[in-house]
Amino acid sequence: MSNITYLVPALGLIGLLVMFFKRGWVVRQDAGSPDMKEIADAIADGALAFLKAEWRVLIVFGIIVSILLGYSGTLVENSSVFIGVSFLIGAFVSAFAGYIGMNIATKSNVRTTQAARTSLTKALEVSFTGGSVMGIGVASLAVIGLGGLFIVLYSAFVGDSTDVNGLGMEKVLEVLAGFSLGAESIALFARVGGGIYTKAADVGADLVGKVEAGIPEDDPRNPATIADNVGDNVGDVAGMGADLFGSYVATILATMVLGREIISSGTDNFGGISPILLPMVIAGVGLIASIIGMFLVRVSDDNGNVQGALNRGNWGSIVLVLIASYPLTMWMLPEGTLTIRGVDFTSIDVFWAILLGSIVGAIMSTVTEYYTAMGKRPVQSIVNQSSTGHATNIIGGLSVGMESTVIPTLVLAAGIYISYEFAGLYGVAIAAAGMMATTAMQLAIDAFGPIADNAGGIAEMAHLPEEVRGRTDILDAVGNTTAAAGKGFAIASAALTSLALFAAFCGVAGINSIDIYKANVLAGLFVGAMIPFIFSSLAIAAVGRAAMKMVEEVRRQFREIPGIMEGTAKPEYDKCVAISTQASIREMVAPGLIALIVPVLVGFLFGPEVLGGTLAGVTVSGVLMGIFQNNAGGAWDNAKKSFEKGAVINGETFYKKSEPHKAAVTGDTVGDPFKDTSGPSMNILIKLMSIVSLVIAPHIGVKNAHTGSLNVNDESKKVVVAVSKAEVAEKSVEVVAAYPLEKKSR
Amino acid sequence: MSNITYLVPALGLIGLLVMFFKRGWVVRQDAGSPDMKEIADAIADGALAFLKAEWRVLIVFGIIVSILLGYSGTLVENSSVFIGVSFLIGAFVSAFAGYIGMNIATKSNVRTTQAARTSLTKALEVSFTGGSVMGIGVASLAVIGLGGLFIVLYSAFVGDSTDVNGLGMEKVLEVLAGFSLGAESIALFARVGGGIYTKAADVGADLVGKVEAGIPEDDPRNPATIADNVGDNVGDVAGMGADLFGSYVATILATMVLGREIISSGTDNFGGISPILLPMVIAGVGLIASIIGMFLVRVSDDNGNVQGALNRGNWGSIVLVLIASYPLTMWMLPEGTLTIRGVDFTSIDVFWAILLGSIVGAIMSTVTEYYTAMGKRPVQSIVNQSSTGHATNIIGGLSVGMESTVIPTLVLAAGIYISYEFAGLYGVAIAAAGMMATTAMQLAIDAFGPIADNAGGIAEMAHLPEEVRGRTDILDAVGNTTAAAGKGFAIASAALTSLALFAAFCGVAGINSIDIYKANVLAGLFVGAMIPFIFSSLAIAAVGRAAMKMVEEVRRQFREIPGIMEGTAKPEYDKCVAISTQASIREMVAPGLIALIVPVLVGFLFGPEVLGGTLAGVTVSGVLMGIFQNNAGGAWDNAKKSFEKGAVINGETFYKKSEPHKAAVTGDTVGDPFKDTSGPSMNILIKLMSIVSLVIAPHIGVKNAHTGSLNVNDESKKVVVAVSKAEVAEKSVEVVAAYPLEKKSR
Repeated sequence: MSNITYLVPALGLIGLLVMFFKRGWVVRQDAGSPDMKEIADAIADGALAFLKAEWRVLIVFGIIVSILLGYSGTLVENSSVFIGVSFLIGAFVSAFAGYIGMNIATKSNVRTTQAARTSLTKALEVSFTGGSVMGIGVASLAVIGLGGLFIVLYSAFVGDSTDVNGLGMEKVLEVLAGFSLGAESIALFARVGGGIYTKAADVGADLVGKVEAGIPEDDPRNPATIADNVGDNVGDVAGMGADLFGSYVATILATMVLGREIISSGTDNFGGISPILLPMVIAGVGLIASIIGMFLVRVSDDNGNVQGALNRGNWGSIVLVLIASYPLTMWMLPEGTLTIRGVDFTSIDVFWAILLGSIVGAIMSTVTEYYTAMGKRPVQSIVNQSSTGHATNIIGGLSVGMESTVIPTLVLAAGIYISYEFAGLYGVAIAAAGMMATTAMQLAIDAFGPIADNAGGIAEMAHLPEEVRGRTDILDAVGNTTAAAGKGFAIASAALTSLALFAAFCGVAGINSIDIYKANVLAGLFVGAMIPFIFSSLAIAAVGRAAMKMVEEVRRQFREIPGIMEGTAKPEYDKCVAISTQASIREMVAPGLIALIVPVLVGFLFGPEVLGGTLAGVTVSGVLMGIFQNNAGGAWDNAKKSFEKGAVINGETFYKKSEPHKAAVTGDTVGDPFKDTSGPSMNILIKLMSIVSLVIAPHIGVKNAHTGSLNVNDESKKVVVAVSKAEVAEKSVEVVAAYPLEKKSR
Repeated sequence: MSNITYLVPALGLIGLLVMFFKRGWVVRQDAGSPDMKEIADAIADGALAFLKAEWRVLIVFGIIVSILLGYSGTLVENSSVFIGVSFLIGAFVSAFAGYIGMNIATKSNVRTTQAARTSLTKALEVSFTGGSVMGIGVASLAVIGLGGLFIVLYSAFVGDSTDVNGLGMEKVLEVLAGFSLGAESIALFARVGGGIYTKAADVGADLVGKVEAGIPEDDPRNPATIADNVGDNVGDVAGMGADLFGSYVATILATMVLGREIISSGTDNFGGISPILLPMVIAGVGLIASIIGMFLVRVSDDNGNVQGALNRGNWGSIVLVLIASYPLTMWMLPEGTLTIRGVDFTSIDVFWAILLGSIVGAIMSTVTEYYTAMGKRPVQSIVNQSSTGHATNIIGGLSVGMESTVIPTLVLAAGIYISYEFAGLYGVAIAAAGMMATTAMQLAIDAFGPIADNAGGIAEMAHLPEEVRGRTDILDAVGNTTAAAGKGFAIASAALTSLALFAAFCGVAGINSIDIYKANVLAGLFVGAMIPFIFSSLAIAAVGRAAMKMVEEVRRQFREIPGIMEGTAKPEYDKCVAISTQASIREMVAPGLIALIVPVLVGFLFGPEVLGGTLAGVTVSGVLMGIFQNNAGGAWDNAKKSFEKGAVINGETFYKKSEPHKAAVTGDTVGDPFKDTSGPSMNILIKLMSIVSLVIAPHIGVKNAHTGSLNVNDESKKVVVAVSKAEVAEKSVEVVAAYPLEKKSR
């Protein structure tokens, strides 16, 4: 095994060291007054209680699945009983990644509040460092987990064999797929459960607090306010941490699986497995690039441009990854022609694909920003339509959300097409891997938002001076924009990753066409495309139901606890926390199981090609529903925010509490489960279903693609081979000259 | 040419005679007082003004497209310059079908009002006869148009040739595709334009009238009330007429095109073209069956079950079609084995496919009814969620709409799979044709709803006694349910028809796989799936914008015209009519052009296989978005209606004007463009894009499938053929035994 293999977990360990250092710095900051500490403790306790309740369910789930997986691994040659263990490790690390994030977030929030009493500079420093701890932690764990497991499995299954890309490597990657499956399963449950929690609390708190009782957001008199702040931590932080951990691992894994299929005319210095190692190395380098980029995030004073600072950090790390990728790719990959499934390319083409991935990601983020930013045409159109009531506001938001799918879809389609032209399916996969390389940075920026949001909540509850809330509001507003852009990025990378996983699945299952011209495959496509609809329906209905329970509880407390509105009696915060916790744990199960069971059922009942159709359906429909829901939700949110400083409609200015503002609040509330529950789950859903398929592929496959043997039982081939004996014979010279497979003319 | 060919237009002529007879009966009915007549005239004038404005635009469009088409027809062997003429005829007849419906509807409405002064029996008789005139008229025109053109074209291109299924027949069908394209294009513009018109007026009238001014629906003091009633006629009647005309023609055509590909081991008595004639004959028989079924629609007194009467008529005609189909199919199709693209079947299998089509249609209607009916779980859940405000009502409706896609998708997938098992792609197509055979009856039932709705409006405006409105309300309520069920039926038949058209397209374009495993095809799938989103976005945004203009105009009139609220001054109805007319004509253009241009662009730039991917994407996504929007809209509508007689939430009963009712009105308003503008356009969208593809197929095709020659430039074939020379040689005996193509094992 080449020494560079050890570099991957080593970089991860460096990351962990940096994380501990940064974490120590955050913890050492002043946590403010006893009042503030008490509030922060209540939030931290609620968040931990949720995670524990969630883990109790997931442990049972994890053990059952790992036993099934382990057993299934003994049934086929190209897997192993260790896939069960690998699954458990993936699940554990994913849950741990969520915990790290939640833990630091619940420490950073109150310290950010305290820092905001001094200056914006300091508040940004604390909150962004908190986000960085999470970002670096998650990325480090992914790199260590994947890299470490790879080393162990390589030693076990390949060892000193000279056939480095043979059955042994196939087992390594199949067992690693178990790791990714574990990570992604937990991610789905965490995202959905956390998403239901946070929005049930948020919607419930707003409906009674803001709309009925007329008290501001985060008012301590509102019994649901602690639950609302807990929600930011379990949904937007812990859920997102598990989500990005899963995505990161899945992307790297998909690229590795496809890397094994590459046939090279030259040799590399890495024992012939450089295309498999490259995505892991890029991930490790991306981690370091992100850490360096984080130094660029600072503002000099209260008038500093926070968004600009974050952009500097983000772009800095992306440029660093690109600069490092060029020599890395050229050095690691063999010279001469590489071939994957009939497409020829060279190492420079791989670099172009990485560059393309970054460009696609950047465009996706920019488009998302445009559709959800205040003052731009889409949000302003919703603002205008708020003047004629709730209904036209909703129509406006739905319309904007649907419209916002156009450019991202075209960009994605172009991205798929061009990255494939560069380097075949490996190009598609590595484009996604390049895009995800700066996950640590992305996550730091994403996590900083809910920390600032919480900090504002604590300031409000602890009755701190106006200026403190003013500073946290600046951070929070920037956080909203970055959250939207992050979602655009996430869905783009998920789409590319799913395609890569999808292609990897086809390879392992041994099919080399998914022909929707066939009635059964087309039926699979229909069923697949329906999954995101039922998944979204379950998720948003769960939020609706849980929010109603929350509303009833809050109304009951207002009615039954005397002195609550005067601030002389304390609301029973824990009752609201319990409602959100129970509802979210119960309601996360059904959507999660759909994602896991559908591919298994379709695969075993109808075979790999129909499953391929189903995956294509899920991916296409999931991407569209994800973009639609994320952007509609983001646009509604900012349409509502537009009224805070006064929104101009036909020359007249409207403020909070005006009729148009009330309509905008309705839109925002509808958008909540869209943008924070079902929308962001879409990218996990499509990846998880692809990974499940990849894991079961050896069990349902028709042949091993790598051996390239013709399977005459495969209907699809008869059609074409069987034109006429004479014709085949006549054409065979021309035809054989086209070997190996689908040779591309360049 | 067999004599049975002449039977088809002959049956259509019988239909026309029946229509004139029924029309005469309606016109002879009493049109009531001068007041009522004045109102009815205003509605009729407004409707005609809209149609004229629409036609002015569409004539220009039609002439340009027909010239382009005619020119393109001269470029390839298997088309003709006459395709341009055929397009114009299709467009004209489609527009005429819409006109017939609108004309009779604007005569039946006031006569139904007058009849409702006597009894429910009489009111149902007038309104349903009005609907029947439209249903019979549309179906007759389709049968005459298709049958007549077929006879003319057959004489011109096939004549006395013995090669009845050769190039001559290909030209016949390609030119007929032009007829279908004309019909479907007009259908799309009529549906979208009419849909925008009716909902802009409806939403605008409600927002100011009901919500702001607190006056009832159809109150003559509301300036938008005439526009609202005109909307029922141009959207729900004329738009729907053109829509169903287009669907009917497209379904029959697709079956005919696939029928040409059937290879038979036996002979028939129809010169070898019985699979091509069968769908036309079934359509003709279905027309007669519908006319007979109409006699079953009557109630004996005011307590009669209107829904039951309609169901009796509907099921009666379906059973008649099935009874007639069995001997027809067995008699017409040759004995022995029939083969289409490698799938073997016999004539009885074709009958099973027709039966299956009816079952799929029935299940789709039933599911739709369940999801949109008052008192059932889905609508009740929305009612419950209205108690916590506008936002939860919206969340509830969106969730119900998304959930409602599950069973229809599974049923459709199963329908595709099983009908394919019965008789290959011909089975899929004829299942749709069987389902559509009773279009005349479907349309009569569908058109009766808006007539009753209008009748109620006239009763209100003419200040007729309470009991009159009571009777029309009974009819209107039944009309809402049948409208929802009709939409379920429409989307199911559209899905099957699109697949058939899609398959026909592949045949003409000469591709025999659409492999989404290829990056470019997958990119096409993404782009295709996005089209229904942007289409819906444009349509609902158009309604939102037009409704806002309407709101402003109504507010202005209330403000500026003294005495309007006291009923002493007359509102300026024509201003509101003009707003709806202008807005709908302007806004229908963009969505319509997308549907027409996208397939042309994709097809010419990227070739037929990528276009195939795009079509699959449009179909899958369009079906889901259609079901989602139709059912969400229907459920919101009935959730609102639940409050009229008192809705029970947690044991408490709420009525109109209560807070939960206000939330339900918001949901209904959001649902309006969903269920009457964008939702029902989806089925036209997917069919239209398939027909456009079919029409351009000869220009972008790689070879003629009918000749079956191997095209060695087709990448997809190389992959498989080129495994190894030795292996091909070794397997060739086994393989050649499998010829012709994909032989199915049964």
